[in-house]
Amino acid sequence: MGDRKYAIIGTGALGGFYGAKLQHAGLDVHFLLKSDYEQVRQHGLIIESKDGDFTLPQVNAYNDADKMPQCDVVIVALKTIQNYLLPQLLPPVIKNNGVVLVLQNGLDIELEIAQIVSNVNIIGGLCFLCSNKVGQGHIRHLDYGHISLGEYSHNYEAEGITNRMQQIANDFQNAGIAIELTEDLLLARWQKLVWNIPYNGLSVVLNARTDELMANSYTRQLVEQLMDEVAAGAKSTGRIIADSFIQKMLDYTVKMKPYRTSMKIDYDEQRPLEVEAIIGNSLRKAQAAGVFLPQINCLYNQLKFLDSRNQR
Amino acid sequence: MGDRKYAIIGTGALGGFYGAKLQHAGLDVHFLLKSDYEQVRQHGLIIESKDGDFTLPQVNAYNDADKMPQCDVVIVALKTIQNYLLPQLLPPVIKNNGVVLVLQNGLDIELEIAQIVSNVNIIGGLCFLCSNKVGQGHIRHLDYGHISLGEYSHNYEAEGITNRMQQIANDFQNAGIAIELTEDLLLARWQKLVWNIPYNGLSVVLNARTDELMANSYTRQLVEQLMDEVAAGAKSTGRIIADSFIQKMLDYTVKMKPYRTSMKIDYDEQRPLEVEAIIGNSLRKAQAAGVFLPQINCLYNQLKFLDSRNQR
Repeated sequence: MGDRKYAIIGTGALGGFYGAKLQHAGLDVHFLLKSDYEQVRQHGLIIESKDGDFTLPQVNAYNDADKMPQCDVVIVALKTIQNYLLPQLLPPVIKNNGVVLVLQNGLDIELEIAQIVSNVNIIGGLCFLCSNKVGQGHIRHLDYGHISLGEYSHNYEAEGITNRMQQIANDFQNAGIAIELTEDLLLARWQKLVWNIPYNGLSVVLNARTDELMANSYTRQLVEQLMDEVAAGAKSTGRIIADSFIQKMLDYTVKMKPYRTSMKIDYDEQRPLEVEAIIGNSLRKAQAAGVFLPQINCLYNQLKFLDSRNQR
Repeated sequence: MGDRKYAIIGTGALGGFYGAKLQHAGLDVHFLLKSDYEQVRQHGLIIESKDGDFTLPQVNAYNDADKMPQCDVVIVALKTIQNYLLPQLLPPVIKNNGVVLVLQNGLDIELEIAQIVSNVNIIGGLCFLCSNKVGQGHIRHLDYGHISLGEYSHNYEAEGITNRMQQIANDFQNAGIAIELTEDLLLARWQKLVWNIPYNGLSVVLNARTDELMANSYTRQLVEQLMDEVAAGAKSTGRIIADSFIQKMLDYTVKMKPYRTSMKIDYDEQRPLEVEAIIGNSLRKAQAAGVFLPQINCLYNQLKFLDSRNQR
């Protein structure tokens, strides 16, 4: 692909951060914006980061996908609740045989992308990033930032490590972003859900931080049972998550600083929750394989109720 | 038993109401009180009721079970969270071969009573009563009031309708309290849980009234799934709850006026919740028969967390 041209679909706390890092490292990056368009077009992006602050006084800013150049790599960094926009946004921006890099949580997102654009390659990326948008075109990176990349293929057959993945990984690593390559994207997605489903879900339903959930023996047990159900979901699609992985996630969370999950932040800000991508799709994928995940189902219905009331 | 002497253990919104009705009808009733003792000893009880207001200027009030006479029928009308007091309160008050009438929600309460007092008969009563204590010795009866009575025997074998039940039913009916006699106490208790577990539980976890839970399709479905799990619990103990019964409860709740459940009222008043009697015992009884109720388990752990945080 030579010198790759990047597009960022969704220049928020995540897309803005990674896009700015790539441009800062010298790559050609094109940003699609909505509310921050005028500000960023005139004044660029400001990044405060624990790894070093920087500003980009000038960026390629767009408020219309049709005006963007066709790019080699299109990074989808919207919240999944906005994915209904992708049939308009993706086709004009992606080069034939280009890469759509999906930096979103949840399951089966790549399937949706594959239905929108054909003759492209799809790579999924799981971001372990703690960042907030603190103002228009102004992003604060608090912690972490590494990405786990995996190539998508039909039906989530494990694809191994492809050249495409390595090329993109090089670009990111040159920009100071840690990358892990995974041979099995679906397994990586289920693994991330082991943490995301219990903590995101319960933090909203019980109005609780991670430390509170772990300090109470009942929710501590419920978290573990929900993790076991995620593993049962993974197993229904042929992916094995070991008990030791679950134990590692529990231990890791106990040691973490008290943490308000991203879904809880969305809820507190009265933004729509990513319930479908993270929980609904997991339930449906297991159900399609004949496996019902009852406690996750309980959490799902509770969140759908709270999300709907929160949007009034 | 001839002219029966009644004791009321726990003179609150429920015990105070039924006890006052019995005394008002001419029966000999003895009331155990705690916080309202001085007020009630001096000024008696005031009952405001949709069936007609009345006052009892003089009642037999006690603040010590050891000072009470031995009674033919001892009505246990405490909240179940105070049942740890029964080993002190019950033995002095109950006549040999008398009746302990347990007017409490939940499962396996009679088992606990049987461990405390022997050579007594135990009758369980399920109250469909809407009443509040609005001041010291002052009770407001808002709606309903009928009681379903069933005789307890070892291991909850169905006992049929006994003479004892009919005698007590007569006393209540003479006092204007509607009584239904049930041949199978355990079935009646499971049936009441079909309503109590989903609505009490979800009303607290989701901060919602019954009408809100029924208006949202997700919680409407969750309520039904929880009811199905109660039926599975009942079945594990040999009791059959038909789908038509569940449908009747759903229809009935849709038609009800918007209702804040008793557990939600306890929660809002920062009183301890009856989670163990209503939900914990149901889970354990099914588990003892080899049946896990996963969505009820999820609700249970959530409620234990919220209850504990609420008591701080």
